[in-house]
Amino acid sequence: MKIYLAGPDVFLPDAMEIGRRKAALCASYGLTGLYPLDNVVDLEAEDASVRIFQGNEAMMREADAIIANLTPFRGPSADVGTVYEIGYMAGLGKLCLAYSNDPSSYADRFAALSARPLTAGPIIDNQGMLVEDFGLGDNLMIIHALEVHGRSLVTPRHPPTDLWGDLTAFEACVRLAADLALPAPSRLS
Amino acid sequence: MKIYLAGPDVFLPDAMEIGRRKAALCASYGLTGLYPLDNVVDLEAEDASVRIFQGNEAMMREADAIIANLTPFRGPSADVGTVYEIGYMAGLGKLCLAYSNDPSSYADRFAALSARPLTAGPIIDNQGMLVEDFGLGDNLMIIHALEVHGRSLVTPRHPPTDLWGDLTAFEACVRLAADLALPAPSRLS
Repeated sequence: MKIYLAGPDVFLPDAMEIGRRKAALCASYGLTGLYPLDNVVDLEAEDASVRIFQGNEAMMREADAIIANLTPFRGPSADVGTVYEIGYMAGLGKLCLAYSNDPSSYADRFAALSARPLTAGPIIDNQGMLVEDFGLGDNLMIIHALEVHGRSLVTPRHPPTDLWGDLTAFEACVRLAADLALPAPSRLS
Repeated sequence: MKIYLAGPDVFLPDAMEIGRRKAALCASYGLTGLYPLDNVVDLEAEDASVRIFQGNEAMMREADAIIANLTPFRGPSADVGTVYEIGYMAGLGKLCLAYSNDPSSYADRFAALSARPLTAGPIIDNQGMLVEDFGLGDNLMIIHALEVHGRSLVTPRHPPTDLWGDLTAFEACVRLAADLALPAPSRLS
């Protein structure tokens, strides 16, 4: 089983090393990890961003599954590029798995970031817009898509000290993928 | 042609009215707009968020196209729920159109939000992560997906006074959809 390794990990200073560690974990379960930075793109080329897109889309089409890092990124929600990729894989009918190293709910993170205590009743942001508050880890479309097109979001009980480098929750997703990749037992019927 | 009307518009205080205006604009071009809030869900039900997801997914499967509002939402990027939906529709092979009422680039918005002037060389955020800087309106996966699976992101020259209520860029997307919905001219060959 080939697994597309999605996440804002590609923006980390040790992006290549994280990719190597993720691919090695996949390999230890008999799976193949495909990491966006495995595509070699000349970042000085005028159409570099198009080539990155094309490489990632080709990888997703080649993959059987996605394991996405949905740890909140520059705000209360996951990285939008990663979220796009979960949607694309769900639409293609591929297996969608994801983790977040932050187990808090979207509404709690919104409250923390906006330094406003949660009060009874609907939560409204400073633009007058409703804050989704179903106790879910992120927008309901993402969270329930995982349940329908794969398995529930994996989160640790407490955020790890190394929010971006800790791969415990990632490895739990790899185990889920490995279990699902097992050939179905033959039926005697 | 049925068009799924995606966007954080559903969180606005006048969410129902915006949906009505968008559907009316679609109708004026001979198209049918499907708005998430057209699905009636009992928000007091224990599984309300699952039902909202199911209603939205069914609408997307019924639709031929999506017009998504990618105006930045609670940070430098678009609403993740909307972005998930573009990915899902792209994976399903449907027509993907989108607009943002903010014409600035992701990198410029990041700089403005973090109150840091852009300097020469790579931009790094306060977590040490690289800020994507290709001059695009948002993450490259979204922007180039629109080009490949639909048409380029539509933006106004300047942000409108009413960032959430102005539907000029939305209407431009409706026109694009209407043009693409025309029956192809018969060929004499």
